[in-house]
Amino acid sequence: MALIVQKYGGTSVGSTARIQAVADKIIRDKTQGHSMVVVVSAMSGETNRLIDLAKAITDSPSDREYDVLVSTGEQVTISLLCMALETKGHAARSYTGGQVRILTDDAHSKARIEKIEDEKIHADLAAGRVVVVAGFQGITEQGHITTLGRGGSDTTAVALAAALKADECQIYTDVDGVYTTDPRVVSNARRLDSLSFEEMLEMASLGSKVLQIRSVEFASKYNVPLRVLSSFTEGGGTLIVSEDKVMEKALISGIAFSRDEAQLTLQGVPDRPGLAYHILDLIAKANIEVDMIVQNTSVAGDTTDFTFTVHRNDYKKAFTIVEQAAHTLGIAKVSGDNKIVKVSIVGIGMRSHAGIASKMFKTLSDEGINIRMISTSEIKVSVVLSEKYLELAVRALHDAFDLA
Amino acid sequence: MALIVQKYGGTSVGSTARIQAVADKIIRDKTQGHSMVVVVSAMSGETNRLIDLAKAITDSPSDREYDVLVSTGEQVTISLLCMALETKGHAARSYTGGQVRILTDDAHSKARIEKIEDEKIHADLAAGRVVVVAGFQGITEQGHITTLGRGGSDTTAVALAAALKADECQIYTDVDGVYTTDPRVVSNARRLDSLSFEEMLEMASLGSKVLQIRSVEFASKYNVPLRVLSSFTEGGGTLIVSEDKVMEKALISGIAFSRDEAQLTLQGVPDRPGLAYHILDLIAKANIEVDMIVQNTSVAGDTTDFTFTVHRNDYKKAFTIVEQAAHTLGIAKVSGDNKIVKVSIVGIGMRSHAGIASKMFKTLSDEGINIRMISTSEIKVSVVLSEKYLELAVRALHDAFDLA
Repeated sequence: MALIVQKYGGTSVGSTARIQAVADKIIRDKTQGHSMVVVVSAMSGETNRLIDLAKAITDSPSDREYDVLVSTGEQVTISLLCMALETKGHAARSYTGGQVRILTDDAHSKARIEKIEDEKIHADLAAGRVVVVAGFQGITEQGHITTLGRGGSDTTAVALAAALKADECQIYTDVDGVYTTDPRVVSNARRLDSLSFEEMLEMASLGSKVLQIRSVEFASKYNVPLRVLSSFTEGGGTLIVSEDKVMEKALISGIAFSRDEAQLTLQGVPDRPGLAYHILDLIAKANIEVDMIVQNTSVAGDTTDFTFTVHRNDYKKAFTIVEQAAHTLGIAKVSGDNKIVKVSIVGIGMRSHAGIASKMFKTLSDEGINIRMISTSEIKVSVVLSEKYLELAVRALHDAFDLA
Repeated sequence: MALIVQKYGGTSVGSTARIQAVADKIIRDKTQGHSMVVVVSAMSGETNRLIDLAKAITDSPSDREYDVLVSTGEQVTISLLCMALETKGHAARSYTGGQVRILTDDAHSKARIEKIEDEKIHADLAAGRVVVVAGFQGITEQGHITTLGRGGSDTTAVALAAALKADECQIYTDVDGVYTTDPRVVSNARRLDSLSFEEMLEMASLGSKVLQIRSVEFASKYNVPLRVLSSFTEGGGTLIVSEDKVMEKALISGIAFSRDEAQLTLQGVPDRPGLAYHILDLIAKANIEVDMIVQNTSVAGDTTDFTFTVHRNDYKKAFTIVEQAAHTLGIAKVSGDNKIVKVSIVGIGMRSHAGIASKMFKTLSDEGINIRMISTSEIKVSVVLSEKYLELAVRALHDAFDLA
């Protein structure tokens, strides 16, 4: 007798047949006595079809009208899913973001949810209806339609779960849970039964595509238990909860990696205050995100070395900016490499156990893998390596930390 | 410096190229100093695509969800048209029916407009923006999305023009105006510069597909000058106004006809009160619309004959109903014919001129055409004929009343 919010992505509702299958899943859970609120994305392909229509008219549509256009995708899905539920004998009612009144700020196409009105939904649930809500969209106080940015349906689901004080938010997707690492790289990667919000955030920010980072942040902030499940296979999925509720307290939960990295190194940088800020400011103004930043302590003399990483797509642009600035700033040499990767071990167990990092470095060293950069957080150690070592490093670490 | 409401139908916005062309037309009028409010339909084919999605799920979708689904069609068009206007350098803002707050009753899929909030639109016009509104849709006081029924975008345009006290409501369509009769039947049919609401109503109810009847009623009720124009050719179109403003006061404005008629005749009907009501009530309960009804005065004895017409698609159903009732009601014989047509002459000049009907009957008689039924109103005479005489009758009348 729980209140469950479920979210089905574009592939899960990609055809009318799949929408019927989703209706069956919902009915199965409802028949067990649960109150059901369901968030859906646009049918797969639909958002791209709409964007193509806009592109035929202009390369730079206004944000406001873009949101009016693409928000129709989810509106189609909510009505079709309600029709399927009703045809199968279950009362249902659809809501656009504006109809619920999912209030957002006015940052069109990347809006943030500010408030959700829950009266209508509670009334429908009390009347025994399944409530189906369009993901990814909201409305401003002034009544303009907004979207939360691509993939934002996860965030809608979590925000609704928080507003409705749901017992669980279930994200149905095309994978059946969160794994210790990518099963395409390590064949004996294992599905985790549960992990903490903090670990999931590190995994997500390190390239795991299972969940949107913002939705995990939201779930963590409002302490909404989040479950990742497959739309296409049965199984309990992976439950993401606050740290004190994680059953399985492993030292290391998983190994995340990202292939899309590039590094820039500035050698012979005059060691004076504000220089690092000045360089990173130039990069930020070009809308390039900087990931890792490493600066060695200036030991001998008055210059230091300074290295940072960016997304591989931004490498050329960043290199040009830094090279242009180098002369003015008195930097001796700029070098770079866009064939690097980042590999990270993530686990809340790290907090209480020393020696995790050194075990990682030893494992890599035993395989003859040179570490370029190191960065650590409370529950994560990341290293930058040459691209060619990626698979070897991930497999070796997966074995070394007994994750299989 | 007028306030103009324009409406463009599905064919006029049937592709992104056509939407760009519509934007050019709007800009041309705006550049002349007019304030522009534009109502658009779904791109042609889009509503059918959406209905096909629903059909893949159920044969009988709930009215509420059907409206949520099909209302996305116009929402796509409003955003694309605004993008086109903005790209061409003109500020624009789109509104769904719900965003304007076009308030309707809750008769989903055939809702009636009850009230239109005009504050936002006036504010946008004052700011120099083109306002683009989704046709065919509204919202109930409770926030449910409604549609006005197919073709209802005309009604949206007229209702908006009335609410905003617009100077003119221009309906852009695929014909360039209202003709004295169908040019496919009479090659020298002439486009009318103007006619009265009453005449247009008679023409529309008699099969002229140029305008939706409800939109003409609305325009008449609120005295909104209505102009029919072509999206594809230049020209002043036909202006439909109140009778006192019609320039061209012809005896007869046009000849309308309908091919989709069928007649049912009940012979030997006991001449007692309530019997006609009883039969028509059975027909109405089967959702069949009755058009003409003719009953002869009972001259000799206690029985009478009773004839009525229905849409040809309803003929079989109506015949079965009447035949079943005939025995109980003591009706001697039921006969019918589904190969009949209706031809009507329409004109406000009829009010003040006698002899119009007799001229019509003489013209038909001279051609050897037998009249089956006659029905008259203040500004119209309709006759029912065998289908084979349709073209001959229309051409002869067009000539006789000098309409070319």
